[in-house]
Amino acid sequence: TNSEADTMAQESDHPSLILTKQGIKDIRANLGKVPIFDESLEATKSEVDAEIELGIQVPIPKDYSGGYTHERHKRNHLIMQKAGVLYQILNDEKYARYIKDMLFAYAELYPTLPPHPQTRSYARGKIFWQCLNDSNWLVYTSQAYDCIYNYLTEEERNTLETELFRPFADYISIGNPKFFNRVHNHSTWGNVAVGMIALVMEDVSLLQRALYGIKDIRLDPNEKDNDGGYINKDGKIGFFANLDEPFSPDGYFTEGPYYQRYASYPFLIFAQALQNKKPELQVFQYKDSVLIKSVNALINLSDVDGEFFLLNDAQKGMSYDSRYLVSAVDIAYKFGGNKPELLSIAEKQGNVTLDDAGLAVALGIKNGKTKPFIKKSIELADGANGDEGAVGILRSGDLELVFKYTAHGLSHGHFDKLSYSLFDEGDEVVQDYGLARFVNIEQKGGGNYLKENKTWAKQTIAHNALVQNETSHFEGKYDLGSQHHSERYFFDSENESVQVASAKEVNAYPGTKWQRTMVLIEDPDYENPYVLDVMRVEAEKANQYDLPFYYLGQMMQTNFEYSKLEVPEILGKSNGYQHLYKEASAVSKGGNLKLNWLLNNKFYSYTFVTAKNDEILLARIGANDPEYNLRTDPTLILRKKNTKNTLFVSTIESHGTYSPVSEFAVNAYSNIKNIEVLLDSEDYTAVQIDTNNEKSDIFIISNQNSDKDAAHKLNIENKEYTWKGPYLLVEKN
Amino acid sequence: TNSEADTMAQESDHPSLILTKQGIKDIRANLGKVPIFDESLEATKSEVDAEIELGIQVPIPKDYSGGYTHERHKRNHLIMQKAGVLYQILNDEKYARYIKDMLFAYAELYPTLPPHPQTRSYARGKIFWQCLNDSNWLVYTSQAYDCIYNYLTEEERNTLETELFRPFADYISIGNPKFFNRVHNHSTWGNVAVGMIALVMEDVSLLQRALYGIKDIRLDPNEKDNDGGYINKDGKIGFFANLDEPFSPDGYFTEGPYYQRYASYPFLIFAQALQNKKPELQVFQYKDSVLIKSVNALINLSDVDGEFFLLNDAQKGMSYDSRYLVSAVDIAYKFGGNKPELLSIAEKQGNVTLDDAGLAVALGIKNGKTKPFIKKSIELADGANGDEGAVGILRSGDLELVFKYTAHGLSHGHFDKLSYSLFDEGDEVVQDYGLARFVNIEQKGGGNYLKENKTWAKQTIAHNALVQNETSHFEGKYDLGSQHHSERYFFDSENESVQVASAKEVNAYPGTKWQRTMVLIEDPDYENPYVLDVMRVEAEKANQYDLPFYYLGQMMQTNFEYSKLEVPEILGKSNGYQHLYKEASAVSKGGNLKLNWLLNNKFYSYTFVTAKNDEILLARIGANDPEYNLRTDPTLILRKKNTKNTLFVSTIESHGTYSPVSEFAVNAYSNIKNIEVLLDSEDYTAVQIDTNNEKSDIFIISNQNSDKDAAHKLNIENKEYTWKGPYLLVEKN
Ligand SMILES: [Ca+2]
Ligand SMILES: [Ca+2]
Ligand SMILES: [Ca+2]
Ligand SMILES: [Mg+2]
Ligand SMILES: [Mg+2]
Ligand SMILES: [Mg+2]
Ligand SMILES: [Mg+2]
Repeated sequence: TNSEADTMAQESDHPSLILTKQGIKDIRANLGKVPIFDESLEATKSEVDAEIELGIQVPIPKDYSGGYTHERHKRNHLIMQKAGVLYQILNDEKYARYIKDMLFAYAELYPTLPPHPQTRSYARGKIFWQCLNDSNWLVYTSQAYDCIYNYLTEEERNTLETELFRPFADYISIGNPKFFNRVHNHSTWGNVAVGMIALVMEDVSLLQRALYGIKDIRLDPNEKDNDGGYINKDGKIGFFANLDEPFSPDGYFTEGPYYQRYASYPFLIFAQALQNKKPELQVFQYKDSVLIKSVNALINLSDVDGEFFLLNDAQKGMSYDSRYLVSAVDIAYKFGGNKPELLSIAEKQGNVTLDDAGLAVALGIKNGKTKPFIKKSIELADGANGDEGAVGILRSGDLELVFKYTAHGLSHGHFDKLSYSLFDEGDEVVQDYGLARFVNIEQKGGGNYLKENKTWAKQTIAHNALVQNETSHFEGKYDLGSQHHSERYFFDSENESVQVASAKEVNAYPGTKWQRTMVLIEDPDYENPYVLDVMRVEAEKANQYDLPFYYLGQMMQTNFEYSKLEVPEILGKSNGYQHLYKEASAVSKGGNLKLNWLLNNKFYSYTFVTAKNDEILLARIGANDPEYNLRTDPTLILRKKNTKNTLFVSTIESHGTYSPVSEFAVNAYSNIKNIEVLLDSEDYTAVQIDTNNEKSDIFIISNQNSDKDAAHKLNIENKEYTWKGPYLLVEKN
Repeated sequence: TNSEADTMAQESDHPSLILTKQGIKDIRANLGKVPIFDESLEATKSEVDAEIELGIQVPIPKDYSGGYTHERHKRNHLIMQKAGVLYQILNDEKYARYIKDMLFAYAELYPTLPPHPQTRSYARGKIFWQCLNDSNWLVYTSQAYDCIYNYLTEEERNTLETELFRPFADYISIGNPKFFNRVHNHSTWGNVAVGMIALVMEDVSLLQRALYGIKDIRLDPNEKDNDGGYINKDGKIGFFANLDEPFSPDGYFTEGPYYQRYASYPFLIFAQALQNKKPELQVFQYKDSVLIKSVNALINLSDVDGEFFLLNDAQKGMSYDSRYLVSAVDIAYKFGGNKPELLSIAEKQGNVTLDDAGLAVALGIKNGKTKPFIKKSIELADGANGDEGAVGILRSGDLELVFKYTAHGLSHGHFDKLSYSLFDEGDEVVQDYGLARFVNIEQKGGGNYLKENKTWAKQTIAHNALVQNETSHFEGKYDLGSQHHSERYFFDSENESVQVASAKEVNAYPGTKWQRTMVLIEDPDYENPYVLDVMRVEAEKANQYDLPFYYLGQMMQTNFEYSKLEVPEILGKSNGYQHLYKEASAVSKGGNLKLNWLLNNKFYSYTFVTAKNDEILLARIGANDPEYNLRTDPTLILRKKNTKNTLFVSTIESHGTYSPVSEFAVNAYSNIKNIEVLLDSEDYTAVQIDTNNEKSDIFIISNQNSDKDAAHKLNIENKEYTWKGPYLLVEKN
């Protein structure tokens, strides 16, 4: 039991998670003077006032995401958090009363609840169908509780803590150790939920549980969750383990930006609270300031619109406008040395958090400190130690090429070694399918993962990646895939006119290894930069290779004859092939083939080198899709049968525009006349690219030595080429 | 031969087509003072200066549209016209010299030219593959010639007129009477081309030819052009005939807004020139000011973005930003009584013509005269006398419903009686396919009409229209279709909360007649307005009826079970059915069926009443499309077999939104619980619509009497309804 002095001491400590006593003073002093803060406050006030009007609804849990009870409870914790900051900022008791009334409604309901009636999750919550969402609830509600802590009597606090918060924290941790004791973005939410309420309640043992996991439980290392991910393979647990594991030293989150966006919130909100309450932990310095770096990495993993690249499971359209990123950017600004380029992101977001961090950003903007955040080409290493491959992002002009040579990406990973996607002015041109899910849209499988995510979206054939013998990488087995990663070979973006990322994969198909080199070339002989893709395959035996090309848009023309089937055929039986309809096919006579297409009123061309008798398949997604869960997007597949070693070489150009208003087509055709492989040996691959205006460039890559300083000498067609470093691009004369 | 006095008189008359001597004075006096004019001038100057830098290119004609020679010659006349006004406005001789040099290059080339080598047109040009484009050239070049007339010596003018202009005008008229002596938008260009050069040269007999056609030629009334349209069925010829025929008294152009946009330029530019040179003709007063009305009609035929509705052959994305419409709006403003709402359209266009009309608009904007152009619901009658059906446009909230009950629309017409399309916030939600053509994109059939335009886009099954026995309206025969039109029954948009358009078709299928009533209802029980569609069919014998519904977007859910085929089947053999793949089907147990879908992050529902054993087909466009000329959009078809009289009733709601950033789905489900047909007799049809919140509305239509003042009394389920006028919407209590 608390002595009166203890109570006083505790009261003086509130609020202290995201708002501090000094912060509130500063915020109040600046009210009406800082536009972006005032606007955010006004918007929040309108939203919360409208909810208060509607009255308190705490229904008995029943639905999956998308359904009423799920969405209502979610809204409750979001609104409580907002009401909390409004109470502190505006000092208007109605907000405190609203939170108090709602918390007491929960305190009455919660003890009566069995696990959630919907059974799809391996870790069911009580308020929601999975512990993840219960954890969300507690992360937000802790902040609200912190804000009204001093408004409540000690008896009221005792009731809430005994009836609601402590049992809630216990249920999502001790009650669900497979959920809590795990390295996974969901578990981070669990750890942070427990940690946040521990900080409010100043409960040392709960805080230890949050930071370092439940010590006395050992889980079966081979057990998996309902998404097929390992529950806990190596025994790492707790918040710090979750910070160690999925983040690379570059701040890349191994599940990819879509999940990082979601995970970043608990990491950063808890780090902020820890910094305020336990500065001695130096959480922002942890692992060479990885949390601050992670925000920088995440912004770099977005296209020019701020939309995240599609890596692993990821829904299209998610962007740094997400409320999670508003928090992340504001916290990174305040606790990461006030980097002025973060202010330009905050300006694009158009709002700030209503707390100390948000005020710092708002004042930075008001005081004219903003600098543009210029996204350059960047390589972000994967793996806790930064040695498990990487994502290479090449940027030039309006093009952004995303080349993936990472580790598997935990349970949200796809079997897509050395795949890529291409964006032009922020629009996908050569796509990654993303996930097969309509998040929170109840009519589509309750808004959860659809079965096509596993049978289609994760499979190799769903990617711009090499498929051998119609099987996915690592046989599509998570246990195998998660043991390996691709190897970066080199990444060089120093020369703006030729930027190169090259990587190798040796594990995905035992007995076969391949190297892919993606080059973004800016050349005065072309209107726009273009992509060169050189993929070299070495195998111990003859295989069939498929290389899909997921262009988006309407085909305009090919330079080869194809025969379209009367009705489509299903392309295969498994590994994702069962979801593709073959619509047309062609057999190459050798030489360059071209696909010319139109997307968003821009003309594109894909030019690819073929050998005689290579097959070309024109296919479309949508087979074995009984509930219309898939998008019916097209693809072109280059198929080489009964082949050991081979080389895939292609270019992608964005070369022209069309206006439906003026009806003018400008530069509708490819500017590339011919691509020729001049040489392909174990040591070197050399490719010549001729333009329509009679210019030629030669690109040479050293296949075995990526040393920046190594000198190379090579004779091709009686001409000697000498250079330093892993590649050469030179104009032929 | 001209006396010196004549020459002087003539010189004093130039320029006089679109620029006048007074106009130039005013323009020069206002330079630097009227922002939109100055910006337009600056943009034009940059464009023309860049072309002058490139030098003069007058290649030997060779290509179809999209190809080099076509695009180059097209650019030449556009740039000459602009250089002409720049010469007059800026008084800089380099512009006059540029035009002069180019004209002399043409004067050298033209006499050597045979008809264009590409043979697809029934009326080949010399510079271009069709006389239409040669006419375009002359319409623009006449303006340039007018601008530099006084800059040239008499001898130079004689050379140009003898070697180039007169033979050019003769070739497109006397040399191609089937092209020139015709009522068709192409012929309008021909007439105007001859008329414009006649006005510059002050050639009375050429002007007569332009205004009234070539008198001494009689064409075969049954001959058709290569698009299947009649060349000259009723012997009407010349500019005034072209003004009489295709425009209704409301200013609706029978081919639809896409072609009106194109045709409006020659009509209005020539009218302007006639007004300046021959005011006694009172061309703007002709047919109760139909030219001015036509501009108003055309703006009303655009969605909230200014993009034209898809009626007949029409490419998507064409809008009033078209340069043709900039001219049309500016001319309508200057010569149509300075209507201030046209200024708001000019502001959206963002530029004005560099002539007297453009200055008037620019000054109007500068002087703050702009008023918003508010597009309301409107009915636009079709037919020279306004008695050949109409287009009914119902607008409410963000919805725009376009209901077509017109005449056939000449050679660009589709077999789509009583079809409709629906727009939400300017995006198509229930689409009209548009045309099967990629205008000026050479890689698609030279940028010309594709064969799928006839086999697919024109056919009834390509529309949201009733199809009987898998045949198109009028057997898909232009000769039959062009003899008839649908009948408007009534149009009433006076009550904003219930707007109704109703029409009947009795000719498209002999022995069958049907009436369709489209209602846009704004009801406080619904978040947004919704569409009610009541279609009543009476037939002499049993038929199969198909009603397609071309929703755009991703299916979310249906409330009925369907079985998807392993592989699609081709739906039929002809009449467009050969282009549809059947993907899935269902058999109704009766009652309401629902389709729920997502488009642009908005949720929509289609709820339709069925009878037991009605079939539902889920299909997709793309069969028998060997060159990927078609878009693979989905459709839902309600099929009633072996049925005589029947009633199709359905509703369309836009009820919810999704945010991929917040991942919140709001109002994802239809608000309509049930639709029930209460009564359906020869005289009345009554439908009850129940919402999820237990409210009911009853809609009753009088099927035989559309009199606004007729009193009706009807007993349904022992309740008496009395009302005045053709319909009643009443809340049930
Ligand atoms: Ca993927
Ligand atoms: Ca070069
Ligand atoms: Ca149509
Ligand atoms: Mg984008
Ligand atoms: Mg994007
Ligand atoms: Mg639009
Ligand atoms: Mg539109």
